[in-house]
Amino acid sequence: MTNRQIVLEQLPQGKLSPDHFRLAQAAIPAPGEGEVLVRTRYISLDAANRAWMQGATYRAALAAGDVMAGGSLAEVMESKTPGLAKGDLVFADTGWQDYAVLPGKSLAKLPDLAPITHLLSVYGVAGLTAYFGLLECGQPKAGETVVVSAAAGSVGSLVGQIAKIRGCKVVGIAGGAAKSAWLKDELGFDEAVDYKAGDVRRALRAACPNGIDVYFDNVGGEIFEAALFNMNNFGRIACCGAVSQYDGAAPPHGPRGVPGLIVTKRLNVRGFIVSDFDEQREGALSDLKSWVESGKLKVLEDVIDGLENAPSALVGLLAGENRGKRMVKVS
Amino acid sequence: MTNRQIVLEQLPQGKLSPDHFRLAQAAIPAPGEGEVLVRTRYISLDAANRAWMQGATYRAALAAGDVMAGGSLAEVMESKTPGLAKGDLVFADTGWQDYAVLPGKSLAKLPDLAPITHLLSVYGVAGLTAYFGLLECGQPKAGETVVVSAAAGSVGSLVGQIAKIRGCKVVGIAGGAAKSAWLKDELGFDEAVDYKAGDVRRALRAACPNGIDVYFDNVGGEIFEAALFNMNNFGRIACCGAVSQYDGAAPPHGPRGVPGLIVTKRLNVRGFIVSDFDEQREGALSDLKSWVESGKLKVLEDVIDGLENAPSALVGLLAGENRGKRMVKVS
Repeated sequence: MTNRQIVLEQLPQGKLSPDHFRLAQAAIPAPGEGEVLVRTRYISLDAANRAWMQGATYRAALAAGDVMAGGSLAEVMESKTPGLAKGDLVFADTGWQDYAVLPGKSLAKLPDLAPITHLLSVYGVAGLTAYFGLLECGQPKAGETVVVSAAAGSVGSLVGQIAKIRGCKVVGIAGGAAKSAWLKDELGFDEAVDYKAGDVRRALRAACPNGIDVYFDNVGGEIFEAALFNMNNFGRIACCGAVSQYDGAAPPHGPRGVPGLIVTKRLNVRGFIVSDFDEQREGALSDLKSWVESGKLKVLEDVIDGLENAPSALVGLLAGENRGKRMVKVS
Repeated sequence: MTNRQIVLEQLPQGKLSPDHFRLAQAAIPAPGEGEVLVRTRYISLDAANRAWMQGATYRAALAAGDVMAGGSLAEVMESKTPGLAKGDLVFADTGWQDYAVLPGKSLAKLPDLAPITHLLSVYGVAGLTAYFGLLECGQPKAGETVVVSAAAGSVGSLVGQIAKIRGCKVVGIAGGAAKSAWLKDELGFDEAVDYKAGDVRRALRAACPNGIDVYFDNVGGEIFEAALFNMNNFGRIACCGAVSQYDGAAPPHGPRGVPGLIVTKRLNVRGFIVSDFDEQREGALSDLKSWVESGKLKVLEDVIDGLENAPSALVGLLAGENRGKRMVKVS
């Protein structure tokens, strides 16, 4: 038995393609004192994977030749650390490979749920990101208008549904007529804007006759600008990511209206990453569980089979192929 | 006796010049029931005057032929409203003219202080803007690094001094070596960056070796971008204005790094105008008074004499001529 690894062979200059990766083989590593050996079960795919290739973010930049970085749902195979035992499930920074050795103290045993994939979607980074970004950064009030971009994605699909649970009017921005229809028909969004169909700023104005109170931004760029121009006074923008700007060269400029409209509309624009809210995690999971169990929150998962397909699955995610949380089943 | 008025004869397309204005004469208006007649004493000049010519902000846009809009320290000449009497001082939206009739309920009697010009500077919009923008939006902690742009201006000069009072390291951005030296020598700033001397991003990096925790933005544009790239994680940006973008055509784009750096650094970017904090006004004035009276806060005023000189004084303010609060003495 060997350890299959997906190596980022070269850093992309423009769009990412599967050719930037190669499959390698390595020996299965052995855990030292305080460490655990884990086997990757499901790799989480996220737009952030691409951002890590652009430079340092909240983690160091990736370099050519690295095993591709990524978080996974993983199973403990051998433990030399107290508190973790063979068979335990953990969320771990394994990278894209079958096996990894990690310090035990960075890992926490996850509850055993069915289906376990929910640990990567609604009860994982995506769910908590949606929850904290919307409720803590966005501070939506019942009756307000909430707009979310990348609305059919793992985070956006949850943001819109949580905003509905909180009594808001919800407008999703997504690419293509089919996704737009799906947001309304399947997820209960009030309106959907197809950003591929033309002038987003005008379409948002039509979809939000009372203006936008909360904008949950996953994309940056022109869609950010379109939302900014439709914000109400004292509106809030939760900045979660800028997927429109990850897959290519760094953008030559930013959205118009910054900072002028932020002043005149007295906006609050706040960036966050999910770990900023670790202390409030238990309460969030409890809310998410009650909504899932009562059927108020639909969990969409998009599972691609096979470690070797991770590169093309990430490229597809960056092109907006997925609905809901995309992950790769490894074992 | 007539009422001299400065009329905005045409809206500027590019840079504002005194030729966009003309002096007119009108009859002195008479107050109706519930109104007061006021005489303008000192007109406040602000970069916002120029912004009002660009379009609707928190007030309706100016149109060609309007008496130029502006706030003044004014004296009640005749009152037909309870609570105000001849001789009372008020801050009023008189516009640029000798006399105006205004609804009494929009006015509050000001305390009689010496010098009364402080009612337009440190105890007026400038002082309260500096106070609330820095302390409420910026939330500076002792030991943190605070950067302010347009640092020699009415608001910036107070922001920097208040940040020093709160125990911060203070860096001011201003135009020219003379202003930079003055910020350090006269106002006690720790460092100053001359934005006319070259690469502001690099100069800020040198002036702020520990990064920027709070950036008080008065200017927008490239200086906003330079600060953004030097912000620390969890930094705060108080957006007060965008003077670099008022005097000319609307900018073709915004600062790079929006929203990408807002996410990765988890910044909080907040726009405000001073009236948002009306309820906290008394406490702020009390703090400002104690600092002025104890000599901790220097008040800089730049008084131009004569209503007819208001247009050139505003053009000069937009070019950065003034140090501290510029106003026009009318009577």
